[in-house]
Amino acid sequence: MGINNLHAVILAGGSGTRFWPASRQSRPKQFLNLVGKESLLCQTIRRIAPKVPAGNIWIVANRRYRKEIKRHTAGFGVRASQVLWEPSAKNTAPAIGWAAARIHAVNPHAVMVVLPSDHLIANRTKFLRLLEKAVDLAQQEYLVTFGIVPARAETGYGYLKTKQDKNVLHVEKFIEKPNFVKAKQFLKNGGYLWNSGMFVWKAEVILRAFKKYLPSIYADVGGADRQDPIQKIWNRLPNISVDYGILEKASNVVAVSAAGIGWSDLGSWEALFEILPKDKAGNTMRGNVVSLDCRDTLIWAHQRLVAAIGLNDLVVIDTSDALLICPKHLSQDVKNLAAFLKQKNRSEQ
Amino acid sequence: MGINNLHAVILAGGSGTRFWPASRQSRPKQFLNLVGKESLLCQTIRRIAPKVPAGNIWIVANRRYRKEIKRHTAGFGVRASQVLWEPSAKNTAPAIGWAAARIHAVNPHAVMVVLPSDHLIANRTKFLRLLEKAVDLAQQEYLVTFGIVPARAETGYGYLKTKQDKNVLHVEKFIEKPNFVKAKQFLKNGGYLWNSGMFVWKAEVILRAFKKYLPSIYADVGGADRQDPIQKIWNRLPNISVDYGILEKASNVVAVSAAGIGWSDLGSWEALFEILPKDKAGNTMRGNVVSLDCRDTLIWAHQRLVAAIGLNDLVVIDTSDALLICPKHLSQDVKNLAAFLKQKNRSEQ
Repeated sequence: MGINNLHAVILAGGSGTRFWPASRQSRPKQFLNLVGKESLLCQTIRRIAPKVPAGNIWIVANRRYRKEIKRHTAGFGVRASQVLWEPSAKNTAPAIGWAAARIHAVNPHAVMVVLPSDHLIANRTKFLRLLEKAVDLAQQEYLVTFGIVPARAETGYGYLKTKQDKNVLHVEKFIEKPNFVKAKQFLKNGGYLWNSGMFVWKAEVILRAFKKYLPSIYADVGGADRQDPIQKIWNRLPNISVDYGILEKASNVVAVSAAGIGWSDLGSWEALFEILPKDKAGNTMRGNVVSLDCRDTLIWAHQRLVAAIGLNDLVVIDTSDALLICPKHLSQDVKNLAAFLKQKNRSEQ
Repeated sequence: MGINNLHAVILAGGSGTRFWPASRQSRPKQFLNLVGKESLLCQTIRRIAPKVPAGNIWIVANRRYRKEIKRHTAGFGVRASQVLWEPSAKNTAPAIGWAAARIHAVNPHAVMVVLPSDHLIANRTKFLRLLEKAVDLAQQEYLVTFGIVPARAETGYGYLKTKQDKNVLHVEKFIEKPNFVKAKQFLKNGGYLWNSGMFVWKAEVILRAFKKYLPSIYADVGGADRQDPIQKIWNRLPNISVDYGILEKASNVVAVSAAGIGWSDLGSWEALFEILPKDKAGNTMRGNVVSLDCRDTLIWAHQRLVAAIGLNDLVVIDTSDALLICPKHLSQDVKNLAAFLKQKNRSEQ
């Protein structure tokens, strides 16, 4: 396939609260340097760049992040016209349908790869090799999902139940986050993959699926090739994911099975901590930290000195106006805290 | 005894590091509001005020704390001439000898009560009643120590071994900080009291004891009734405590036995935490704190929000430039941390 036919759609609309206090309403996770020297959004663009020309990279985001989007995409040659501003946060189907219509209008033969903007993929080479395979499948008119080979009985992800048929891994079923017993069973049985939320398909093929399974979105976004119309129709679009609205129903869904690409959805401080380099005592300390006898502890200092004595399995995140302290295994509860701050309309939300 | 004969000497030279990061080299514990609305130094002055006229209150401190001393004594009518500036930190004997000489020069009949500036006494009424008793004993030419009835087998204090003889509790022996086995034995045996470092005696009587047991100090401070001379002789004075230099040797040492005065030397964050009011889960939270499921945890926020989830037995102390996190039972190790910062000449020391 000619490189000019490959487009990327990067979903940067998330307002994640799981990395509070580093992430804020005004600066969600995709704009943070959680791992490495660039934001996750920049890493996502840079990862795809060898296969997708800058003029084919589309960003879907909320206009409230206008400044951040500009700052993080400036170095890549992504033009303002390639950013699709969602009038409000909806789920993935409206954003993907809109992007598909725009891309199809530019190039009816385009293949589009849909990527979350806030995941980590440590091994770019392996990822790009799998992407080639996915693009091949997409050109055979499949709807292709990236499935991650499970590393553990994870209860935090959706799963794909797959069945090999000759060279193609068909997705038989989308499974919502399972309980631990089921997750263990999946791991044991094999053939189950984590649903990574990365997809590859021809714009034409996914638009045909929209027409069939989500005709209201199809009808509305078909004409939305400028900003004005989308403002008017956005409110009436259903708040639904592409998984639930289309992929669970379509019969031509296949997976590429990804192992060893170093994928993480970075769903919590604990998940991040797992992949960060550690000292001999299992600690990761960043910034102005003095510690004595700490073990398995993550400390991110901001400017002030953080002095830690005898801590175990703790997460300590310092910022200029808020500090988080919690045991590693409770770091998922940060979203409750962020919800509480929002409810109270606190400045630290 | 006429009230005008009673003088107080408040030892405010301490440079304590045990309450880092709230206490600093430039602002030691006696200047902090750890409990209540005033600094410990102010509380010490206010406690004694009903028995000692402002003109009889003497403060011994290092000149580096000139501003703090001025600020904390200003409201009490303590004149600048009543502050004795130690040229450098020595132990208690030089300071007490010097103060005794000054007081004796003003009033040869004076009784002086010596008080640390950084201890807590919650029950002032009981304390003042005991003070009256101590003053009576002092007028009988005894060297009187305040002994605290032990509440537990404490290994952090020195002890007084006492023996009742008619109405007088004689101190037979001063005992250095014991190990836990000995401390339990003391508690079981009875007759052992914690050495609080509070003393009452006639200026004339303690000067006589200096002449006998620490003649070098006696000779030097006898003439030190102005600032100039003390600067010259201070360096050659021995660095010794009044307990070790005099009280262990003198035969006229007695104790008043103090129970229920709510005494604490506030030797660590843990010791402070013990006496602070707590919520149902055993927490003390001060300032801008949001907490979920914490137990037995002390959090002092400064300005920034401190968000805590699922913490147990932890101490979290936030200040503008430094943050401390440690388990309660390790809060004594803060002094090691402060020593480390001093060694590195860090701004946060």
